[in-house]
Amino acid sequence: MRGRFITVEGAEGAGKSTNVAFIKRLLQARGMVVHATREPGGTPLAEEIRRLLVTPREEAVDATAETLLIFAARAQHLAACIEPALAAGRWVLCDRFTDSTFAYQGGGRGVDEAWIEQLADRVHGGRCPDLTLYLDAPPAVGVERLGGRPLDRFEAEGTAFLGRARATFRRRAAGLPRIVEVDANRPLVEVQADLAAAIERALEAWRQ
Amino acid sequence: MRGRFITVEGAEGAGKSTNVAFIKRLLQARGMVVHATREPGGTPLAEEIRRLLVTPREEAVDATAETLLIFAARAQHLAACIEPALAAGRWVLCDRFTDSTFAYQGGGRGVDEAWIEQLADRVHGGRCPDLTLYLDAPPAVGVERLGGRPLDRFEAEGTAFLGRARATFRRRAAGLPRIVEVDANRPLVEVQADLAAAIERALEAWRQ
Repeated sequence: MRGRFITVEGAEGAGKSTNVAFIKRLLQARGMVVHATREPGGTPLAEEIRRLLVTPREEAVDATAETLLIFAARAQHLAACIEPALAAGRWVLCDRFTDSTFAYQGGGRGVDEAWIEQLADRVHGGRCPDLTLYLDAPPAVGVERLGGRPLDRFEAEGTAFLGRARATFRRRAAGLPRIVEVDANRPLVEVQADLAAAIERALEAWRQ
Repeated sequence: MRGRFITVEGAEGAGKSTNVAFIKRLLQARGMVVHATREPGGTPLAEEIRRLLVTPREEAVDATAETLLIFAARAQHLAACIEPALAAGRWVLCDRFTDSTFAYQGGGRGVDEAWIEQLADRVHGGRCPDLTLYLDAPPAVGVERLGGRPLDRFEAEGTAFLGRARATFRRRAAGLPRIVEVDANRPLVEVQADLAAAIERALEAWRQ
């Protein structure tokens, strides 16, 4: 089976890192060669852009500038990492992708979704995740799980912002068949059982 | 007279910095309050983006990513610096602006000009330079004038790239009435006489 592009979405504190590692092991156990990566980031330049984005700063960041920075990192990530890995037959597992841009910049900041869609069309060049696992949790649960570490520029926006982002994630999950929503506000073992089942169903579909 | 937005374009080594300082003094002598700035840059975040762009790096930078980074810096510069300055009645004098994106990313790297135009429409939000002074010089003259200092990532592209950028600048200068082309491959005193005359004509037109 050719390599697939799988993305994991959800708020910080919803267990993305833990579950990306779980999904990676699960795919590797089936013999797939998996490249795990993240957005914004995934290449040296894109990681430098990430630092510009997440570092708290005094200067108010224009929402258009923020959106363009994210797509700049994404264009670099696709060109220098994701596309070469898929072309080499590897599976790519990415912590966040364009659904997060719709959630945080679109829902959270009010950036025009039609414009985000245009940028995505241009930057993706036809590439779309084959499967997206969305870990859903209320903002308060997510922020609490961060365990008091310093918040980045997005986490620090507060629960109203994070609530708008969550509503956008859920709307997209309800409307796009590639997105599977998993309730992350449960014991990890239950969350991972659902993730494993979702991957099982996807593998079955791809085999046919 | 309300403040105007004046941009200075041209290759590195064509005398932009010297002539931006000259134009600033010239406007100040007439009582205008002038804010001199540059692109990419002009705000703390935009200057950090500039550093990502100009620093030579091993990683091949995707042309789409580069174009998006430049427009991210531009959106921030417009929102946090240029628009507030103009709204406060100041004159804004900017070393490089969107004509450079058409020249370097469009002409130089072959990025689709129609897409650059779309990004400009979105990011400018109706703002356009009132006057653009384009300092023209053959690439070899410009690089020679840099006097052996280390080249940045654009200067290091070589004369074929810089020649394509120059051809784009000249085509735009020929087609857009706001752009005045000045032959910079002459003694400074002659270049500055032409710049002063161009500004004189523009001031006359704006007075009416």
